[in-house]
Amino acid sequence: MEKDGALKMPVIAVNDAMTKYLFDNRYGTGQSAWDGINRTTNLLVAGKNVVVAGYGWCGRGVAMRAAGLGASVIVTEVDPIRALEARMDGHRVMKMAEAAKIGDLFVTATGNRDILTADHFKVMQDGAILANSGHFNVEIDMEALESLAKSTRTVRHNIKEYDIGNRRINVIAEGRLVNLAAGDGHPAEVMDMSFANQALCVRYIAENKLLNGVHGVPRELDTYVAKLKLESMGISTDELTSKQECYMSGWEFVT
Amino acid sequence: MEKDGALKMPVIAVNDAMTKYLFDNRYGTGQSAWDGINRTTNLLVAGKNVVVAGYGWCGRGVAMRAAGLGASVIVTEVDPIRALEARMDGHRVMKMAEAAKIGDLFVTATGNRDILTADHFKVMQDGAILANSGHFNVEIDMEALESLAKSTRTVRHNIKEYDIGNRRINVIAEGRLVNLAAGDGHPAEVMDMSFANQALCVRYIAENKLLNGVHGVPRELDTYVAKLKLESMGISTDELTSKQECYMSGWEFVT
Amino acid sequence: MEKDGALKMPVIAVNDAMTKYLFDNRYGTGQSAWDGINRTTNLLVAGKNVVVAGYGWCGRGVAMRAAGLGASVIVTEVDPIRALEARMDGHRVMKMAEAAKIGDLFVTATGNRDILTADHFKVMQDGAILANSGHFNVEIDMEALESLAKSTRTVRHNIKEYDIGNRRINVIAEGRLVNLAAGDGHPAEVMDMSFANQALCVRYIAENKLLNGVHGVPRELDTYVAKLKLESMGISTDELTSKQECYMSGWEFVT
Amino acid sequence: MEKDGALKMPVIAVNDAMTKYLFDNRYGTGQSAWDGINRTTNLLVAGKNVVVAGYGWCGRGVAMRAAGLGASVIVTEVDPIRALEARMDGHRVMKMAEAAKIGDLFVTATGNRDILTADHFKVMQDGAILANSGHFNVEIDMEALESLAKSTRTVRHNIKEYDIGNRRINVIAEGRLVNLAAGDGHPAEVMDMSFANQALCVRYIAENKLLNGVHGVPRELDTYVAKLKLESMGISTDELTSKQECYMSGWEFVT
Repeated sequence: MEKDGALKMPVIAVNDAMTKYLFDNRYGTGQSAWDGINRTTNLLVAGKNVVVAGYGWCGRGVAMRAAGLGASVIVTEVDPIRALEARMDGHRVMKMAEAAKIGDLFVTATGNRDILTADHFKVMQDGAILANSGHFNVEIDMEALESLAKSTRTVRHNIKEYDIGNRRINVIAEGRLVNLAAGDGHPAEVMDMSFANQALCVRYIAENKLLNGVHGVPRELDTYVAKLKLESMGISTDELTSKQECYMSGWEFVT
Repeated sequence: MEKDGALKMPVIAVNDAMTKYLFDNRYGTGQSAWDGINRTTNLLVAGKNVVVAGYGWCGRGVAMRAAGLGASVIVTEVDPIRALEARMDGHRVMKMAEAAKIGDLFVTATGNRDILTADHFKVMQDGAILANSGHFNVEIDMEALESLAKSTRTVRHNIKEYDIGNRRINVIAEGRLVNLAAGDGHPAEVMDMSFANQALCVRYIAENKLLNGVHGVPRELDTYVAKLKLESMGISTDELTSKQECYMSGWEFVT
Repeated sequence: MEKDGALKMPVIAVNDAMTKYLFDNRYGTGQSAWDGINRTTNLLVAGKNVVVAGYGWCGRGVAMRAAGLGASVIVTEVDPIRALEARMDGHRVMKMAEAAKIGDLFVTATGNRDILTADHFKVMQDGAILANSGHFNVEIDMEALESLAKSTRTVRHNIKEYDIGNRRINVIAEGRLVNLAAGDGHPAEVMDMSFANQALCVRYIAENKLLNGVHGVPRELDTYVAKLKLESMGISTDELTSKQECYMSGWEFVT
Repeated sequence: MEKDGALKMPVIAVNDAMTKYLFDNRYGTGQSAWDGINRTTNLLVAGKNVVVAGYGWCGRGVAMRAAGLGASVIVTEVDPIRALEARMDGHRVMKMAEAAKIGDLFVTATGNRDILTADHFKVMQDGAILANSGHFNVEIDMEALESLAKSTRTVRHNIKEYDIGNRRINVIAEGRLVNLAAGDGHPAEVMDMSFANQALCVRYIAENKLLNGVHGVPRELDTYVAKLKLESMGISTDELTSKQECYMSGWEFVT
């Protein structure tokens, strides 16, 4: 929008605050996606092939918690660096075309569209379960699934089964954000940091009369939010001595 | 009951089937206890001190999943061997008198009574949360908590806060089994094995005209249940060659 | 030997002590097998397909630590219950005939023979690495590998490469116990319990004049070893109250 | 050096390549630090309180692998955001003054000096073990330890015990980089990426005639290294469709 001249106000990209994406996206989405899936399906995660699409901070959280629940995790990615990271974290990495065939449960977390499409539905196992934990209900191509379906039925509250002829595919909460549409959203305890960032950034915009355009989150606000959070948890950290500050910034060792 | 002459029928101790306690108790309770706690509290497990009382198969499951959700786990035990196992699994182990002071969330899974008592309530942190995942609502001494309480209120559906003067203690589902009283119970996928054991054992009792008293689960039934389960999951295993069977049973190496 | 009348002395099956197999076999072998493999290969475990043959206590330890080092673990088993357990612990489970094709590194821990044979060598990936962490050097069929080899060379101290024509297979320490033959054996800290069991059992045999044949480890010795170990680690555990002992042993609830 | 006008050549900060610090620092240091510690001490990591100083990429790797080996991990940090991350990853977080009292094994990975000092040595447990996995041997104040020592002796190859009167403190490899000074350094498999970055950056400097000063690693080189690595591991990833590229870059949804 900024590039297109469509942004008529100052904006701070709060989503880029470390105390936002490192926590809310990872630990918040990670836990709440599974809360939504588990309370809706009442199935066992342990022993399942769980396919996580996307290894950004949300995907990492979803994959980490899937492994923590005993799943064997498969990650799909478009970014080579993230793909490599997923592999080094112990997950299998492959193209979705391959993962589609062996997954028991799929969670999309890419923030992009068309992650699960007709080509994938057609090769999935009978009874596969799909959930979306990304931005919007565009990650799973619901239109294509509707078109393929001979019939549909609600197999359990908030789970719709699409019978596409030779296999049945189950979608949780219409492919909408699973932690919101099938759960209570992120835990309040992790949203506190995100909201603190938002509030502090709004004040910062006002006090510093920022110009129209996209601005980064001031590092000192980010750190301040983390400090408050640690304090509320009763956790103390160390502080740099002056010798240590000097060592860090310098390039010569001084005794 | 058998010892007291009060058992007037043949009984197979189905709970001792490996395909029961290794799975239902561990993976079933492990997941469903947290499903119940998470959907009821909507709090973040990551970063919390979670105290698990008892390191039997249920306790192991609850502790394993707590760690999988990012908690720092503390285990209390009366059995030295289990205590040592908990420690080697990476958890902290201490007396409940100590754990009570630092726990954020407590889950009892001992199958015994009086695990959390007045002495513990009095030293807990303000806002501590208690849940029971053991047999019955005797693990948390609810009577003692009622007596200590100046006032109580429902802070969230199924969570009761006891204000005992200088601290507030929250109890999920009245201290009843948290996965049943605050969730949907064990996932069907793990109960299938437990129920298969029960059905097969009832048939076994009838077909073999067992005498009154407690009998063990026949190993072949146990193995048969596991085989059926693996088959349903599409998993194949190896089989012993005759040379291997010979090697296993013998004490001399024969080429 | 007892069955064959070949056992001319009293024996306590020390390997069946819980403070032996739950610790020495699992945590001891688990860590020391990887210590041996890592110091010998200097390769990265993270991101590798590690195949663990056998999911007894040694295999569990090896698999657990492989996952802890970032591997994607595949388990092979002949016992359906253990196979299911391995799957629920998040590992892939398949026949060795399949695992052989995709494994990067193989660790045998079955206590049996002929786990990796000519049929497997022929389908392995070029550069596959084999190690044995079971009883003896019979788990990997070294004779068959020698026969298949067009040539061999030492690629690194204690690693022999077998060029079988279209692929090269690397064996650590001649297929002997990898933690002993390529490392320093189990950590002293876990052997202490095993040795304590042995010493206490020898005394027990002498003091109680046990008859010839195989005897179980007395539970009180097992517990005593665990208690001493906990004490040495500065760990305290809870003790049962008389009300709790009564509750555990009884079948009626008494207030 | 650049700021001080002391940098007389073009430099690319290769350490800032994602394919360097995300992998070499995390998975490489993580594994090799423990390889060095384990082969040198032959002690069991499971059940130990392991204190990791610093939660940068090296510290994360060391902490992750410590947990993977069964340790209970304590992290010390000066940065509130990293401290919070460590806590959410399931570790305990506290000041070193507190951690010093309860740690069994300490690994410094801060890249700074004076992490473990006289104040800490004096409160450590008898038999505490110290290792450094950061930049240089300045993380542990060896001079202070020498001064405190009544006597010293080599208790095992490459481990020196400092008897400071009422407690003995063991230092591995003189406080030098434990993976280099007590092991074989990083696995070759992870150094390959770091070296590829270095080679490609040198060529980039030459081909693009970069000016004196510090330059970032070109993102395309970083991605190229990851691609080559994935290829060598036989891993395929997905590619963005044009619709997906459009969705990612745009701010309006177009069907």
